[in-house]
Amino acid sequence: MRAYDIIKKKRDGQDLSKDELSAFLGNYLKGEVSDYQVSAFLMAVFLKGMTTEEMVNMTEIMLESGSRIDLSDIPGPKIDKHSTGGVGDKVSLVLVPLVASAGVVVPMMSGRGLGHTGGTVDKLESIPGFRTTLSVKEFKDILSKIGCAMIGQSEEIAPLDRRLYALRDVTATVESIPLIASSIMSKKLSKGIDGLVLDVKVGRGAFMKDLEGARRLAKTMTEIGNSFGVKTAALLTDMNEPLGMAIGNSLEVREAIDALKGKGPQDLMEVTLHLGALMLKLGGIEESLEAGKGRLIRLIEDGSALERFIKMIELHGGNPKIVERPTLLPYSCLSIDITSQESGYIQSMDAEAVGVASMILGAGRERMDSIIDPAAGIILKKKVGDFVERGEILCSFCTADDALGEKAREIFLNAIKFGERPPANRRFLEKRRLIIDTIEEVKN
Amino acid sequence: MRAYDIIKKKRDGQDLSKDELSAFLGNYLKGEVSDYQVSAFLMAVFLKGMTTEEMVNMTEIMLESGSRIDLSDIPGPKIDKHSTGGVGDKVSLVLVPLVASAGVVVPMMSGRGLGHTGGTVDKLESIPGFRTTLSVKEFKDILSKIGCAMIGQSEEIAPLDRRLYALRDVTATVESIPLIASSIMSKKLSKGIDGLVLDVKVGRGAFMKDLEGARRLAKTMTEIGNSFGVKTAALLTDMNEPLGMAIGNSLEVREAIDALKGKGPQDLMEVTLHLGALMLKLGGIEESLEAGKGRLIRLIEDGSALERFIKMIELHGGNPKIVERPTLLPYSCLSIDITSQESGYIQSMDAEAVGVASMILGAGRERMDSIIDPAAGIILKKKVGDFVERGEILCSFCTADDALGEKAREIFLNAIKFGERPPANRRFLEKRRLIIDTIEEVKN
Repeated sequence: MRAYDIIKKKRDGQDLSKDELSAFLGNYLKGEVSDYQVSAFLMAVFLKGMTTEEMVNMTEIMLESGSRIDLSDIPGPKIDKHSTGGVGDKVSLVLVPLVASAGVVVPMMSGRGLGHTGGTVDKLESIPGFRTTLSVKEFKDILSKIGCAMIGQSEEIAPLDRRLYALRDVTATVESIPLIASSIMSKKLSKGIDGLVLDVKVGRGAFMKDLEGARRLAKTMTEIGNSFGVKTAALLTDMNEPLGMAIGNSLEVREAIDALKGKGPQDLMEVTLHLGALMLKLGGIEESLEAGKGRLIRLIEDGSALERFIKMIELHGGNPKIVERPTLLPYSCLSIDITSQESGYIQSMDAEAVGVASMILGAGRERMDSIIDPAAGIILKKKVGDFVERGEILCSFCTADDALGEKAREIFLNAIKFGERPPANRRFLEKRRLIIDTIEEVKN
Repeated sequence: MRAYDIIKKKRDGQDLSKDELSAFLGNYLKGEVSDYQVSAFLMAVFLKGMTTEEMVNMTEIMLESGSRIDLSDIPGPKIDKHSTGGVGDKVSLVLVPLVASAGVVVPMMSGRGLGHTGGTVDKLESIPGFRTTLSVKEFKDILSKIGCAMIGQSEEIAPLDRRLYALRDVTATVESIPLIASSIMSKKLSKGIDGLVLDVKVGRGAFMKDLEGARRLAKTMTEIGNSFGVKTAALLTDMNEPLGMAIGNSLEVREAIDALKGKGPQDLMEVTLHLGALMLKLGGIEESLEAGKGRLIRLIEDGSALERFIKMIELHGGNPKIVERPTLLPYSCLSIDITSQESGYIQSMDAEAVGVASMILGAGRERMDSIIDPAAGIILKKKVGDFVERGEILCSFCTADDALGEKAREIFLNAIKFGERPPANRRFLEKRRLIIDTIEEVKN
């Protein structure tokens, strides 16, 4: 089986067998197939697609390219969560301790932010002392003790995916459903995991801009997960505007703490509770989503969720006092108020542009090797649907450098569209459709 | 302009401007764009195509990547010829001296054989002493003296094409009309050339297996040529079976000499005379193809064409005595007669398989670095339409090694299909359609 013939077959729209994919990608790892052959293959996959069977095989080959964490000796329903990434998406910080306090074991491995989107690992690392790199033993010890632990992706997990992603990133082959789906799933299917919920973001601030593509991605990943015997479900959630009011690492940790104290913004809570209820359902703890949401609200109200978060910070080496004194979080930045130059109802707030503004302020990475400022970011004062007077404060920038604030200001102001009336989806009786769809294909 | 954005644009089926193509490919030559980015781009071109304007720009960028031979100071109409390659295709060896003897200047640069197809340079090099590598000055001196010269492609011509071809060869992106057309044309458009005829082969032994693809390629190259101010015309000719009776380098030189002596096989002469007449027409020497053919036949009959061939061999450093004594050509091989195991009319003779058999005997290259045996090849004794008795000789193999003969025999025998009646296109009043079409878009 020559590399040439594999590329040609995919180029001509034919399906590849597991043996063919495995030989091609295995020889790539061995150095016998070159980068330029793989990038031609990736472009052919991008333009010709893959069947579900091919994607399942691709996922398995990537899984098997490295070591898999074995969680089968940890008792309790083990359910993970993944988000395709957005702006202000601090859901995991709230969700993980919350569902752990309900009896779900959450062994979460997350990524870092890139471009306009943030990453959970960066957010956690803004907590002084918090270690996101743990040995497998430490990770499992924490899981056994409190039912949740949150670490970064280890080099040993799916090294093939790492190699492929690096190539895709420079050859315009990132936005391909088969490649995205197999990449995500290969990092999420640890041994012994029982379930997985996926938060597939859709809209201007998301990776998938259109609903149709997002729905296909969600269904594809759900199918892959279930075919590995992992109960998988997905939400499609709106990411046209940022989630919550805070964008930026330590700022989002503060908002997450507020949420665990029962003072979270409505949109953040809606997504978190829905995902959490889905996890309780997959874990067999509650029969219905409504019952699950009720249980989770009670665990916030009685302080159990916050307590779990404090324990997790402690066991990860972080300073748990930040929960009571958020000023212990990085906070050394300038605060610049951005005022409106127009009056009117905010019709839309382009999440991608807000994410880029936040990145410029120092909260994000332009390239993988950029260094972030954990204290930087944006605190929104107004959101879509709000009425704003000219001169009123729209948001506050946190940044280490006035010049960065100047660069970000125009981008931020251009991200907002005003109108004379509230936008259609915020008027009386017309609610924003934040959770667009729930895809459950739970096979018991 | 980032490489990423250029790849993405082509991936999404958008047209690239000359500046974009030029920046991308120029940066590739400078080492700032990598092989893996270019191979992703080539796959995107393969699957999304290019407009004629893009192909013209691509050709120009490749032309400008190296030096161009300037022929403008050589008097007379300068017309080149190119074949997309086939089995037994020794047309250039006959055509070049023939049309030169009619007053057309033919500055031919040719390639080497690969796989089942042969190359003109390899055939010429089987003539003892014949030099296919000349300085530009030597090349032009010979052209000025006798109106024809035949050399290999120099490293300085279109180096970008050389780089791209090497990548295409290992990434399954060879068979793309925009990439083939711009590659061929970038090597053929020397400065000062007036016309170009293209022999686009179609069928089992050709690069283009289907008529529709071959026609598109022919039209595309004709358009590109004319857009550079070079009068370009193309023939579509059948390559389902080998051309002539000889396959293999020195064997084809012998057959070419026979043809220049007026004893060439009918199919070889038909293609040669048609191409030659087209060249006379493009060169303004004859008004019609019929008149051109008549003139060329007279130049064979009166010995002018053969005399020109002898002079060309002499000026290239070769031994002109081979013309009168073909046994001076490499001839050190075993001769193995292959007899038929069936009786019947030959219905078809798969040119590709015959080419592969000849390659195995030593006449061709499996890889670019394989070494060829100039004396090896096949002399056909029977062709399509002939009646054969079981045990009759179908062909003779020339090879240095009996074992190679054994390997080639089965392939050769499997290439031939027999039937009880002559095949439809060889019956009374039904002639083989060797010249399928002539595409003339001569802009004067």
